[in-house]
Amino acid sequence: MIIARILGTVVSTQKDARLAGKKLLIVKPINLDGSDQSGYLVSVDTVGAGFQEKVIVVGGSSARMAEGNKDCPVDSAIIGVIDSFDFVK
Amino acid sequence: MIIARILGTVVSTQKDARLAGKKLLIVKPINLDGSDQSGYLVSVDTVGAGFQEKVIVVGGSSARMAEGNKDCPVDSAIIGVIDSFDFVK
Amino acid sequence: MIIARILGTVVSTQKDARLAGKKLLIVKPINLDGSDQSGYLVSVDTVGAGFQEKVIVVGGSSARMAEGNKDCPVDSAIIGVIDSFDFVK
Amino acid sequence: MIIARILGTVVSTQKDARLAGKKLLIVKPINLDGSDQSGYLVSVDTVGAGFQEKVIVVGGSSARMAEGNKDCPVDSAIIGVIDSFDFVK
Amino acid sequence: MIIARILGTVVSTQKDARLAGKKLLIVKPINLDGSDQSGYLVSVDTVGAGFQEKVIVVGGSSARMAEGNKDCPVDSAIIGVIDSFDFVK
Repeated sequence: MIIARILGTVVSTQKDARLAGKKLLIVKPINLDGSDQSGYLVSVDTVGAGFQEKVIVVGGSSARMAEGNKDCPVDSAIIGVIDSFDFVK
Repeated sequence: MIIARILGTVVSTQKDARLAGKKLLIVKPINLDGSDQSGYLVSVDTVGAGFQEKVIVVGGSSARMAEGNKDCPVDSAIIGVIDSFDFVK
Repeated sequence: MIIARILGTVVSTQKDARLAGKKLLIVKPINLDGSDQSGYLVSVDTVGAGFQEKVIVVGGSSARMAEGNKDCPVDSAIIGVIDSFDFVK
Repeated sequence: MIIARILGTVVSTQKDARLAGKKLLIVKPINLDGSDQSGYLVSVDTVGAGFQEKVIVVGGSSARMAEGNKDCPVDSAIIGVIDSFDFVK
Repeated sequence: MIIARILGTVVSTQKDARLAGKKLLIVKPINLDGSDQSGYLVSVDTVGAGFQEKVIVVGGSSARMAEGNKDCPVDSAIIGVIDSFDFVK
């Protein structure tokens, strides 16, 4: 998994039926010092995360194991809001 | 998932039987500012997306969860046409 | 999926039983302008592609969905010979 | 799999129910000479690894094959503490 | 799949039960001209490959399709010893 922060939202009307009702968020992977990484992902929020919160993002087939994503065409899911993380280099 | 725009099409006659009737599109991943990323993907359209439209693209095994792709040898699928996306850096 | 061209072959006698009879080809991913990308892949041909032909290559678990690859230890398969592709930047 | 060392921990209260009780560690991939690679991963410890220990990390759907991770939304797991590794260039 | 050569071994006592008895090798991906790529992988040998031999390495969930790896937490497996490979640029 990676740590990311929530930047925004994607709106899509014409979409796969299994995406109905899913919150598609734009997330930005961050480094351990809090700085942004390049790139972004569109990820399904499954835990009610809020704007700019730091979250845990899971990728690949495991994104379908997140709550509500079973058999859905999604490859990225937000599975936790981060209270804190700490590390020693 | 990523955001991409549709650039073109791939035509293949001699192909896996499970690709019959599938629309294979060339998509270009884009950045959040709308600029192009390097690279491209060949992706199966499952939502009737049009040329140059911005779309949501799912990768890996989850591409097989998109409408009509069950058990197909595809690792990328277009699963939504994007109406809009917005974000705050 | 990606577009690649076929460069050569790999010969292996001491191998997984499920690879018996499979044609293992060396493929080179290409850009949309026809130039080579860096790198290469070893991919199982499932459509009878020929030397230097441009082909569609699928990766990951979906390579096992290609004809004849069920339950095989392969992560890349050639699933189509490309007649043509066209795009507008 | 890759070799990594354990740098720290991630704390999350608001998370997927299947993450309950799992130890989420921050791991740093290392090179064969012991130096750090760039980047990091959040990985589920399944073997009781300790701070700064060198470990084997598995990624993708196979992370769900590690002890206790069945059907969990995790894409990275620590599956072994490394006693030693040796190699000749 | 990729072509790699075998550099060494990893020893781990405290590990996932499903890794018991598995030979964990350090492999170095190589280019088609025989030169080393950067990076390395820890891969499960399933074909009795020897030191410095060139081998075919499969990644992702398909590594679990290799002989003896069913349901094991492994994302890389050696599935063939290469006799030769040839290609024309």
